[in-house]
Amino acid sequence: MAELTKMVRPGSVAVVGASAAAGKIGNTILNNMISSGFDGKIYPINPKEKEIKGIKAYPSVIDIKEPVDMAVIAVPASRVPDVAEECGKAGVKNLVVVSAGFKEVGPAGLELEKRLTNVCRQYGMRMLGPNVVGLIDTHTPINASFSGTFPQQGEIAFFSQSGAMLVAILDWSAAGGLGFSRVISLGNKADLSEIDFIEDAADDPNTKVILCYIEDIVDGRRFLEVVARAARKKPVIILKSGTSQAGAQAASSHTGALAGSDLAYEVAFRQCGVIRAHSMTELFDLAVAFARAPVPRGSRVAIVTNAGGPGIIATDNVENTGLQMARFTKETIEELRVKLPSEAGLYNPVDVLGDAKADRYRLALQKVCADPNVDSVVVLVCPAGVTEPVQTAEAILEMREAFPEKPIFAAYMGGENLAKGAGLLVRAGVPCYTFPEPAIASIRGLVRYNELLNTPEEGGSTNLKGLDRNGVKAIFYDVIRDQRLVLLGSEAAEVANCYGIPATPITLATTPQEAVSEADKMGYPVVMKVASPKILHKTDVGGVKIGLKDAAQVREAFTDIMDNVHGYMPQAVIYGIEVQKMMPKGDELIVGMTRDVQFGPLIAFGLGGIYVNLLKDVSFRLARGLSAREIEIMLRETKAYTLLRGYRGEKPRDIEAVVDVIRRVAALVTDFPEITEMDINPVFAYEEGMGLSALDIKITIS
Amino acid sequence: MAELTKMVRPGSVAVVGASAAAGKIGNTILNNMISSGFDGKIYPINPKEKEIKGIKAYPSVIDIKEPVDMAVIAVPASRVPDVAEECGKAGVKNLVVVSAGFKEVGPAGLELEKRLTNVCRQYGMRMLGPNVVGLIDTHTPINASFSGTFPQQGEIAFFSQSGAMLVAILDWSAAGGLGFSRVISLGNKADLSEIDFIEDAADDPNTKVILCYIEDIVDGRRFLEVVARAARKKPVIILKSGTSQAGAQAASSHTGALAGSDLAYEVAFRQCGVIRAHSMTELFDLAVAFARAPVPRGSRVAIVTNAGGPGIIATDNVENTGLQMARFTKETIEELRVKLPSEAGLYNPVDVLGDAKADRYRLALQKVCADPNVDSVVVLVCPAGVTEPVQTAEAILEMREAFPEKPIFAAYMGGENLAKGAGLLVRAGVPCYTFPEPAIASIRGLVRYNELLNTPEEGGSTNLKGLDRNGVKAIFYDVIRDQRLVLLGSEAAEVANCYGIPATPITLATTPQEAVSEADKMGYPVVMKVASPKILHKTDVGGVKIGLKDAAQVREAFTDIMDNVHGYMPQAVIYGIEVQKMMPKGDELIVGMTRDVQFGPLIAFGLGGIYVNLLKDVSFRLARGLSAREIEIMLRETKAYTLLRGYRGEKPRDIEAVVDVIRRVAALVTDFPEITEMDINPVFAYEEGMGLSALDIKITIS
Repeated sequence: MAELTKMVRPGSVAVVGASAAAGKIGNTILNNMISSGFDGKIYPINPKEKEIKGIKAYPSVIDIKEPVDMAVIAVPASRVPDVAEECGKAGVKNLVVVSAGFKEVGPAGLELEKRLTNVCRQYGMRMLGPNVVGLIDTHTPINASFSGTFPQQGEIAFFSQSGAMLVAILDWSAAGGLGFSRVISLGNKADLSEIDFIEDAADDPNTKVILCYIEDIVDGRRFLEVVARAARKKPVIILKSGTSQAGAQAASSHTGALAGSDLAYEVAFRQCGVIRAHSMTELFDLAVAFARAPVPRGSRVAIVTNAGGPGIIATDNVENTGLQMARFTKETIEELRVKLPSEAGLYNPVDVLGDAKADRYRLALQKVCADPNVDSVVVLVCPAGVTEPVQTAEAILEMREAFPEKPIFAAYMGGENLAKGAGLLVRAGVPCYTFPEPAIASIRGLVRYNELLNTPEEGGSTNLKGLDRNGVKAIFYDVIRDQRLVLLGSEAAEVANCYGIPATPITLATTPQEAVSEADKMGYPVVMKVASPKILHKTDVGGVKIGLKDAAQVREAFTDIMDNVHGYMPQAVIYGIEVQKMMPKGDELIVGMTRDVQFGPLIAFGLGGIYVNLLKDVSFRLARGLSAREIEIMLRETKAYTLLRGYRGEKPRDIEAVVDVIRRVAALVTDFPEITEMDINPVFAYEEGMGLSALDIKITIS
Repeated sequence: MAELTKMVRPGSVAVVGASAAAGKIGNTILNNMISSGFDGKIYPINPKEKEIKGIKAYPSVIDIKEPVDMAVIAVPASRVPDVAEECGKAGVKNLVVVSAGFKEVGPAGLELEKRLTNVCRQYGMRMLGPNVVGLIDTHTPINASFSGTFPQQGEIAFFSQSGAMLVAILDWSAAGGLGFSRVISLGNKADLSEIDFIEDAADDPNTKVILCYIEDIVDGRRFLEVVARAARKKPVIILKSGTSQAGAQAASSHTGALAGSDLAYEVAFRQCGVIRAHSMTELFDLAVAFARAPVPRGSRVAIVTNAGGPGIIATDNVENTGLQMARFTKETIEELRVKLPSEAGLYNPVDVLGDAKADRYRLALQKVCADPNVDSVVVLVCPAGVTEPVQTAEAILEMREAFPEKPIFAAYMGGENLAKGAGLLVRAGVPCYTFPEPAIASIRGLVRYNELLNTPEEGGSTNLKGLDRNGVKAIFYDVIRDQRLVLLGSEAAEVANCYGIPATPITLATTPQEAVSEADKMGYPVVMKVASPKILHKTDVGGVKIGLKDAAQVREAFTDIMDNVHGYMPQAVIYGIEVQKMMPKGDELIVGMTRDVQFGPLIAFGLGGIYVNLLKDVSFRLARGLSAREIEIMLRETKAYTLLRGYRGEKPRDIEAVVDVIRRVAALVTDFPEITEMDINPVFAYEEGMGLSALDIKITIS
């Protein structure tokens, strides 16, 4: 999106509301613009001043009469729309609206924000804000913000929906020496949002890692598209808050009840390759890791330590985190045996012993880093009497030089005695912590990103054959004309059949004769159920008969059910009686869909049957673009998969058919946004090659 | 255990191996003893010196001729047993053996360690070590160690099985101003272990928190007893490493297969009230929290912040951690409304807004701390322009003074701009972090401890009636005489009945007539199964017949099964055919037992049936002392409990009977250590008042 270039790298900037009075935001912004080293033109706008800080001031942007790339606006909210209008007339294309007092203060503010947005749209202007701290790019350089701190130059782009957090992080990172390429406060996101800035930063040569703190997403579909692309170019790490407000989900389907409020974000982030941080500590530990270390080729970690206990703790941590302890080659072990003292630990973790000086660390690290079975290395240093923290740090830096493709992290477990060594590492860009856990957690983040890069990009379910869209439309048309939103079982089965989903045969019969002729067609035994939108508990009113073996039984059942239902609920409208074929029992699965406001339909798969909400063995994916490969991974996340592979000596089930059904359900709910909820529970799965039967299909439309 | 008093508070100490040569461990220890301010007598022992550091030296402890309370031994390992012998003869009762070269170096060292331990036993000496850094008590004061750092006085007792970690922590804590009451290196734990030191520290008036790093436990049973008592006196926080080595558990029972290698520790720690840390960061964050904050009365947290975003993040964290956001009283909200600006957030989190100075924080904190619905408080401070970090810290300290029963934690989210305020808090003993997460994690630790203190202590299952020990013994005797370890189903049922566990009626019949008479007695229908220790898959050889409705069918089944089995496996020894009553189907549960080397029998409860290993819905407890109340909690941890309460409109099951069966199984496996494995799967649970039926009972003995 070339559009944003002038936003982060403008040639000229007007500061509307610029002021000579210390303490005013307009003063801080102007000072920041000047002191940032911005080398374009700066135009202070203030009707009461001739010049500010030695720069000629203008009453309005219109008066400048030269091209202005960007205007930073810091005037009272009520005046902002007019100022924006002037900017529009003057041909300014980019606004940073610092002023607060919009959507965040209530309905009147929202009204004002809408006016502002309309002005922007009218003049084709892009806007950051309103209600932002501003925008910083350390490489341009520009500091169009009222932040008190201008960060060190670095490779991290940080976009924050909370201005306070942004200011806090700038203050905090200054102490730790962490550098940024860009820091942007997102504010009310009335126009530009994290999506635009992620897209732009993905192509920014100065940015290596993209970091976000967000509280919501404005356009889930665009987020998915843009971020999925960006995440393949560089790591996108997001802390999304507001995960705990469970809210009162009024879900009437199984699938809806199983999906928590945070689920859609979890699934969406995962599917578009976002690395999700769950705390601020994690967000910044990951940022440091990605900025400073290469992405490893795999998950095999080597540990070199001068003490046993910490080595064990680190080993636990590696394995509990889902990483692997590297198994060294025979050559490595042999060389370590020759070079290290006889009491040293030669296997992973390598224990160079408490009396190790830097040279012994160097020897061990050389062998370990060179081992092809090692993907990343953690060096633990405890302060023993002879430990050489600084020289050991130098050895670590040499190894980074010699093995640039392998991440090396350090844990210097101590205080004063190790401080110089730890400081040397941090300044030289080797992540160094007090305890091993954050080092290992960071490596895990790197490894996950490597896995994403190794996942081939895939298209969705576009190559499915035999989808009868018009058939489905016709059924929905009839249902709506009948003033219903919930489909009858026979209607839902018809819809399923239109999309090649193997529904168990079921038909609505209105007379005993019809019931018999339908049963004859599908074959015995059959089940019969009253079809009435008002009757929810069919069994309770004598509305269900099972195991009917012949025409006589079907005929009798028809009359019985009608009599029962009329007896219990004389007022109920009855559509007829549904006749369904009784299928041989298979493994019970559920395939379902719930719809997320932001990200659209989510597909669920897992163990089905009456215990579905008890067992909660369900895996979710976004329906959009769901590939067969991803479905296979989805299946593997469930216990149901163990059944499908053939549990306790049983034959494997027809997994191919399961994958196919999930693809077809995904296609159906993507093609028809009017399907608000859908459950197939149970789906009976049979042996390999024998397919499935979708027994009970519930579809609700809107 | 008054025994340890002279170990941590000796009146006189001999340093064996004391040396004048800098760099020698015996030199460091003597220096440390002197510089620690130890006010008892110090006797350097060195046959080559007349005096060291101006103190008269002795050739041997025997030569002192005055009472010596403790000897610190730092001579080559090979000489240690002789030195210990001399100490014994001289009447020394406490040894700290610093020397390494024992168990940790292999078989010869182990031999030496055994000799040393025997000497100690012979003379009634207690020993710390060998292979330790030593022992520090800052209140005595004494530094009988070779640690380079003598910690600040404080209220944390730290016991570490890793000497290197101990030294690292002392170095690290010196920088952070963390103080300790005692620091003890546990080494090889040949005599004294963490159990002894925890027991002693529980009664040490200078210790408020007990902290341990351990790699194993020497005596699980004593650990449980001692630590359960200690944990009610003060918090015991343990980091136990070696959790990930899954090891090759050759478990033949369901229960054994479901129990991971770390499970016994997890269950044992939980049951005796240990607060388990899972990382070094967590260990020390918890230590700080317990040392510096009171234990709150409940789990309701209030947050006061000057910025929205961090408030949301903290709220998420509170809820995701299992704590609750406090709901303020109407009065509090009304008072906040009066005192705070109109845009302020009055509900929890309280947002005092970005322009809040210290006075506004003070106002808000006063109201929030006084609210009876608030148990603990987290204060977030972001660096806005007008923020007053130091004065805000002072306000926080005032609140701690005014509300000493409520923990107040702070997160100062920034660097340089907030450093002075954060420093003030830390020095004054208010835990202050950069990000909110560790503050909230620490509060959770405090809340857990409060829950432990509120759990009444309970005896075990001693009041169970109708336990026929001799009956069980007789059955085991017969099985062993028959050279078997696995009981037949009918034998296992008999054992169960001896302990009042309602086994489904099952008897071994050796003739068709016997089978019929047994079936007549128990009532039809029945199941018949071949009883042969060699036949594992009874169905495969035609060894099972179900649903037998009368005497004729039983008679025929007997002959059929015998014929089938003889046909398939002519060599198999057949004990006869087991006749079992067919019970009405109930909810399928599992009750089982697996035995841990350290902690004895573990009881499992959960969803049973053929899918038990698939669903893995199992909760574990130590059998020893398992109370009915604890069993209720155990049940609630499982999905099976949802079934028991009556799932989807079903009537509740007989939960009382389930609790009773678990108590009886616990009693059985505690009384009979020879039971190595036991599974009851399924147990059928029926409606309230209808009890259970233990269908398939497997018992293996040794």
